[in-house]
Amino acid sequence: MERLEKQLAFALELDKEKQVGRQTSLADGSRKENDAEHAWHLAVMTLLLAEYANEPIDLLHTVAMVLFHDVVEIYAGDTYAYDEEGKKTQKSREEDAAAKLYGLLPEDQKEWLTALWKEFEAGETPEARFAHTMDNFQPVMLNAASAGKEWKAHQVRLSQIMGRQKITPLGSEILWDHEREHFIKPYVDNGTIIDDRPSDT
Amino acid sequence: MERLEKQLAFALELDKEKQVGRQTSLADGSRKENDAEHAWHLAVMTLLLAEYANEPIDLLHTVAMVLFHDVVEIYAGDTYAYDEEGKKTQKSREEDAAAKLYGLLPEDQKEWLTALWKEFEAGETPEARFAHTMDNFQPVMLNAASAGKEWKAHQVRLSQIMGRQKITPLGSEILWDHEREHFIKPYVDNGTIIDDRPSDT
Repeated sequence: MERLEKQLAFALELDKEKQVGRQTSLADGSRKENDAEHAWHLAVMTLLLAEYANEPIDLLHTVAMVLFHDVVEIYAGDTYAYDEEGKKTQKSREEDAAAKLYGLLPEDQKEWLTALWKEFEAGETPEARFAHTMDNFQPVMLNAASAGKEWKAHQVRLSQIMGRQKITPLGSEILWDHEREHFIKPYVDNGTIIDDRPSDT
Repeated sequence: MERLEKQLAFALELDKEKQVGRQTSLADGSRKENDAEHAWHLAVMTLLLAEYANEPIDLLHTVAMVLFHDVVEIYAGDTYAYDEEGKKTQKSREEDAAAKLYGLLPEDQKEWLTALWKEFEAGETPEARFAHTMDNFQPVMLNAASAGKEWKAHQVRLSQIMGRQKITPLGSEILWDHEREHFIKPYVDNGTIIDDRPSDT
């Protein structure tokens, strides 16, 4: 059963995703979440919210994509959305990690998961666009729920959020509208998110 | 957008699944896993191992089932596999929890997720049988990886494991054979799992 042993070696290695920390707090602010929890949250939210996708999406394909989208971070580490230094080396670190991690699998599954990850990264299919909407929406939802705890800690500016969120409406205009109005605007209005838009005056 | 607000209230409540502790350690024994991490692990393993199901399964249906299978524990708590007292009240606690939690959703999604959970609990469809195989296989894989840490801590007996694992082969004979030979037998042989089979002599 060489095939099964390879698959199980990979399944066991995936356990390490539970130890890759993220910069987003849980809704109650008690601690930060990890990559496995984040991927689970994106998957259940995809199942609940797929009706708001701009275009029809293949649900199984999208759920598989969000479940696996961060596993390369087991070797490459999480790169915070607003870490400009880390982002310079992110792509090459993650490509090395993908080769090593997916290399544990039988050839067909290695090809399948490598392609799925590259499709997510490229963001050019309806499924990848919606997966990115989920990946952007969920941490902002949690940040808003914790009264902007991590935004405050990292002194995040509105221009940083809007830069990252540029692609969110490409997957779902409806979810982006809700996110902007209910999760971001109140925290700009109360000063938690630093409003760095040029002044009108 | 009353519908979306209900869905997002539910999605935010699901965040609490990350704080429901389980009795299974991570593979490296560093800490115990939680329900969200466990559900994520079952989902990725389902995507990797579905080829070993005894019967054809609908993959999306099975993945959705494992992703949501434990969410009632947000209100009902996790009941350890070998906690005989806790198991007496588990069913009624979980039914109350399901009514409360799924009651946050719009009616159609409440009905969908309630039915999906009941299907899992009943274990009478190919998808539910395979979901239970995953739910039993994954913690035994992790226990074996951590050299039986939680088996030792709880002084688990072979008869307890075999009782719980009775349904594992119903979803996959192949995975059950592997689990028994590679994850359970070595830990009976080395005395980590208490061998309480009647003696031959």
